[in-house]
Amino acid sequence: MSRFRDNKFSSLKEYVPGEQPQDKKYVKLNTNESPFPPSPSVIEAVSSEEVSKLNLYSDPECKVLKKAVAERYELNTENVFLSNGSDEILNFAFMLYGNVNGTVFPDISYGFYKVFGDLYNIRYDAVPLTESFEINPDDYKNTGKFVVIANPNAPTGIALTLDVIEDIVRSNPDNVVLIDEAYVDFGAESAISLIDKYSNLIVCRTYSKSRSLAGARLGFAFAAKELIADLELIRNSTNPYNINRLTQIAGTAAIMQDEYYMDACKEIQRVRAITDNELKKLGFEVLKSKANFLFAKHKDIDGGELYLKLKENGVLVRHFTNERICQYNRITIGTEEQMTILIDTIKKIMEEEK
Amino acid sequence: MSRFRDNKFSSLKEYVPGEQPQDKKYVKLNTNESPFPPSPSVIEAVSSEEVSKLNLYSDPECKVLKKAVAERYELNTENVFLSNGSDEILNFAFMLYGNVNGTVFPDISYGFYKVFGDLYNIRYDAVPLTESFEINPDDYKNTGKFVVIANPNAPTGIALTLDVIEDIVRSNPDNVVLIDEAYVDFGAESAISLIDKYSNLIVCRTYSKSRSLAGARLGFAFAAKELIADLELIRNSTNPYNINRLTQIAGTAAIMQDEYYMDACKEIQRVRAITDNELKKLGFEVLKSKANFLFAKHKDIDGGELYLKLKENGVLVRHFTNERICQYNRITIGTEEQMTILIDTIKKIMEEEK
Repeated sequence: MSRFRDNKFSSLKEYVPGEQPQDKKYVKLNTNESPFPPSPSVIEAVSSEEVSKLNLYSDPECKVLKKAVAERYELNTENVFLSNGSDEILNFAFMLYGNVNGTVFPDISYGFYKVFGDLYNIRYDAVPLTESFEINPDDYKNTGKFVVIANPNAPTGIALTLDVIEDIVRSNPDNVVLIDEAYVDFGAESAISLIDKYSNLIVCRTYSKSRSLAGARLGFAFAAKELIADLELIRNSTNPYNINRLTQIAGTAAIMQDEYYMDACKEIQRVRAITDNELKKLGFEVLKSKANFLFAKHKDIDGGELYLKLKENGVLVRHFTNERICQYNRITIGTEEQMTILIDTIKKIMEEEK
Repeated sequence: MSRFRDNKFSSLKEYVPGEQPQDKKYVKLNTNESPFPPSPSVIEAVSSEEVSKLNLYSDPECKVLKKAVAERYELNTENVFLSNGSDEILNFAFMLYGNVNGTVFPDISYGFYKVFGDLYNIRYDAVPLTESFEINPDDYKNTGKFVVIANPNAPTGIALTLDVIEDIVRSNPDNVVLIDEAYVDFGAESAISLIDKYSNLIVCRTYSKSRSLAGARLGFAFAAKELIADLELIRNSTNPYNINRLTQIAGTAAIMQDEYYMDACKEIQRVRAITDNELKKLGFEVLKSKANFLFAKHKDIDGGELYLKLKENGVLVRHFTNERICQYNRITIGTEEQMTILIDTIKKIMEEEK
């Protein structure tokens, strides 16, 4: 770091994303990408003709994309916010609400929440999950603070029901509750239906998982129009052209052919059930996941060691060094074929361990 | 705005980008885009095959693109920073250095500097340009503050020489000097050669103007590796996947065929000289521009009125309401054909005014 930098950033620890190795081809089950390509509508829409127009700025208001997203979810465009990946929504929300009266989120959740907390010098409570890695809803009621909950949670995959989410939102009338639904399409209940009812709710979504567009960077959020105006204020005061032309086109084409993605989500749930069963047969303890990944540990194999052995054998999963979860690995659900390779590789590793 | 928002944003005024109307087709000379499409290498590189890989995250380290940019400018990759448009570089730099001891920039310059100043509650001096709209270098020497200068400046188009820039950088050894070279490829001198010599210099560039990729969102910066590490810290603490797959591919393909763009810059300079001459023949006062736009006023036609009449006639230019420059319009240099339409339309308007 330089000697010129503001001291307030001196102890900031940046977020470390899952590795994206370029050295060789892995069975890549480490960053919760979809194993399926974007829909044919996307491949068709991002044409050479569109590429040849890249000399022109994108529409900073993203009118076409915003309308398509609003229609898909039966909301008004004034209730929709779009961003360069959903991390940007989280970033803006922490800026806007994090420091008003402090922030609360689970200690084991998306690692970026802590980074945003530190970046903006926010007083935050990282509330421990229960022994069984569940969120205790009571910890998030009547907080008077900015509440951030991933539902389903990551890396556990465990979801709260809509009733519980509504209780939390209702009990915090004077502060914003952000529900991060990055993984909701894989079997959990969305809080979108609560948007019209609660002025303090932000529902945050992404195209990176269920919409097969991780590489395009596109996030979206739903909220009352006043909250959307807050988010727009920060977007327009930092990077109004944040979403590029081709991503706007891809995002529109994707949502117009949404049955393709909803079918893919069903397939991922089917493969998740098979994988869950196979892992348990091998003696793994697997948390009950509503996401496109499984969080699993084995009593006889160290989590870090399993991660390394899998990597040596060409299979990438995600391992976290945090003490409470370091015996687990987070395994993205890929195609059935990829998961067969995973299971066979684990069997081979277990055989060698004997 | 919502009642939940942090009070510190209560008086923030967002940046207003140039209009991007979708209602009809204009001769679009208002946002300094290149009139030329991206190079053939870009059209070829952003293929259907690449689009079909959008389910995978982009490389957050942008290794391939960073290497291509470093090679083009004969620097090391550790001296290169990449971003989702150059606004993001400015944003991060204001966060990092703006509040250490205050900030100084010209009062008439890129409008976003003030927005960043307000966003982060920075004490900034917006130093008036001289009577002839020039930057007085002495105002930026020995400031002890974060210095931001666009060179060439916008919307004036007037450039400082490299000697003057070096004097400013040298005289501020304990604070960062950021030179925003968005328009440098159209005839001004770049400060890139000073990067190895001064540890306090950031040179900020964009693909949006000379590289015909405004719609792809790609900015880059050069600096000593310690300053690059500062910028990376903020990037990784806000949005590490900020640059999407197709933009990385387009940016790499563009820089590999850079002679295409350097030829286009020469053509724009040629058309700029013709347009400058034509405007003067019509009685306009035109500032001496080293950018891809001209800043011009006419003693007999109100600046705001000319803007509106041109728009009615299908030609978009940029008008600013700031009192000191409201008699001017900023006119992007398009193709020779587009500029002929502009001149003919102005003649028609002047004829009707008589």
